[in-house]
Amino acid sequence: MPEIRKDIFGGGWVIYSGKRIGRPNDYADFKVKCPFCPGREEETPPEILRWPKGKNWQIRLVPNRYPALTKEEIFLKPSCGLYEYAGGYGIHDVLVETPEHKGGFESFSIEKIKKIFEIYSMRCGEIKKEKNIKYAMVFKNVGKNAGASLRHPHSQIIGLPLIPSTVSWETEKNESFWEKNSKCLFCETIKNEIKIKSRIVYENSKYAAFCPFASRFFFEIWIMPKKHEPYFESPKNDFLALAYAVKKVFSALNRSVKDLSYNMIIHSAPCGEHPHYHWHIEILPKLASMAGFEWGSGFHINSLRPEEAAEILRKGKIFNFDKEEK
Amino acid sequence: MPEIRKDIFGGGWVIYSGKRIGRPNDYADFKVKCPFCPGREEETPPEILRWPKGKNWQIRLVPNRYPALTKEEIFLKPSCGLYEYAGGYGIHDVLVETPEHKGGFESFSIEKIKKIFEIYSMRCGEIKKEKNIKYAMVFKNVGKNAGASLRHPHSQIIGLPLIPSTVSWETEKNESFWEKNSKCLFCETIKNEIKIKSRIVYENSKYAAFCPFASRFFFEIWIMPKKHEPYFESPKNDFLALAYAVKKVFSALNRSVKDLSYNMIIHSAPCGEHPHYHWHIEILPKLASMAGFEWGSGFHINSLRPEEAAEILRKGKIFNFDKEEK
Repeated sequence: MPEIRKDIFGGGWVIYSGKRIGRPNDYADFKVKCPFCPGREEETPPEILRWPKGKNWQIRLVPNRYPALTKEEIFLKPSCGLYEYAGGYGIHDVLVETPEHKGGFESFSIEKIKKIFEIYSMRCGEIKKEKNIKYAMVFKNVGKNAGASLRHPHSQIIGLPLIPSTVSWETEKNESFWEKNSKCLFCETIKNEIKIKSRIVYENSKYAAFCPFASRFFFEIWIMPKKHEPYFESPKNDFLALAYAVKKVFSALNRSVKDLSYNMIIHSAPCGEHPHYHWHIEILPKLASMAGFEWGSGFHINSLRPEEAAEILRKGKIFNFDKEEK
Repeated sequence: MPEIRKDIFGGGWVIYSGKRIGRPNDYADFKVKCPFCPGREEETPPEILRWPKGKNWQIRLVPNRYPALTKEEIFLKPSCGLYEYAGGYGIHDVLVETPEHKGGFESFSIEKIKKIFEIYSMRCGEIKKEKNIKYAMVFKNVGKNAGASLRHPHSQIIGLPLIPSTVSWETEKNESFWEKNSKCLFCETIKNEIKIKSRIVYENSKYAAFCPFASRFFFEIWIMPKKHEPYFESPKNDFLALAYAVKKVFSALNRSVKDLSYNMIIHSAPCGEHPHYHWHIEILPKLASMAGFEWGSGFHINSLRPEEAAEILRKGKIFNFDKEEK
């Protein structure tokens, strides 16, 4: 039975799910037949939506066949005490981004990227209305270094019965900043980044993409709406302007970094009223030979400053990891 | 100039250090001549100590030639505001554990392991007496998946001008538990683990090794003194009993997991009076194809429960990652 346990020492959550064992991995096994390619639509559970309708779909949204969490599980309120846990209740979808076996935001059309973000947003809104769901998160793992198991371009949407620790921490920091300054920490950050310029990767009238001041990873990039908006699923978001930012950022990343592996995570306000939160996208590239002691140590060692990373990306320089960091 | 920046959203710290670029990596380049093998002692900065003295050393402690932090840097108090940072002031040593190019805690003698932990402990005590140092941490990265750059068995000791976020969080949790229960959270955990038995990997009169209830990683193991003790550098610690626990744990891990990559981190109380903290060792194995989205999401997905992991280790079963989790 899937289960969610709380790391009472570190504050994070761990989802235990036996269902994921046995799932296909075409990085480990080249004989794996891709379950996301056209003609194998029946290998995924019944579709939630396809766009456009009909045979020649461009995007499909399906339940994950190997879900980390499921609605079949009984919802248990997290217990309090030495061992905190909850039932493995939740929702876990897969968005197949294209019928092609390869590609990515760097090669997709603006229209397609806009549609993908509209579907993410629509589905997050739906998931957040489900009973006992407290959070909806979009994430995307690309490349073996980032833990991906299938090459076919896809992303995941997960509905959680709890608020992820990263979002709780951001919310706490932002609330205490708001109390002191009557301003949003994210709004202030983005204003400052635009003024300072050195960490900006791309900017349009609605969004800015920048390498954050304390980037944990080489070429870490955050994309943030310039205007305060707590919810990724808000109809006020301009996904056309976002599509331009996303395409530009991934084109720059793929130009500068060979064989890019990365995780992309969309952070949005939890269910309920969180007017001070500010949604944003975090892109965390995973370059080869990353250290791992950060999990236990509470600090990262990074030898590429975000100012240098942003300059490399803006100028379209090629970054040779083996030469720079070996 | 090295610099430490605070991730104000997530609470962690990032050390930026240009000096590490260009350091040798014998995982990436087989032509690299090992700087830790006998005969190349002059390739490390002047030795802090060797044991035993003379030509036939078994252990050497040296300053890191590619330090993340150095005492040459001016110490700056962390600034407060939107961007928090401090100078890259600190200490970064390397402990060469053996003259042999291979080996590990699973193959070292009990006497050698005891000596290694005595040197760790002695050096942490020294580092914590240095001006402006707030924390001393021992860590060890083994294998490419864990971010190691050299195969020769070695570990690292770092002196930091700040308290790592993991230790701050543990301290906060423990203090609030102490306030409510007048007991140490770690002491209660270890008592419970011994009672429940299912997550115990090894136990002797002084130490217990167990897979924690919310293990983030496959085969994650914590080794903890049974008796309350805040400081790893305390003379009260029994490093002979610890050596038996360490040897047993790494023998079990290496028997069950092929090509083990792991990070080991020793958590101890920060400088000053922290009577409620409880020092311990965290061993975080890094199995191939680990996901990476945990950094941004605030949760882990793990398909091997700690109860199963502990049983595999206790029974000496072989764990086939590719078969179990693909």
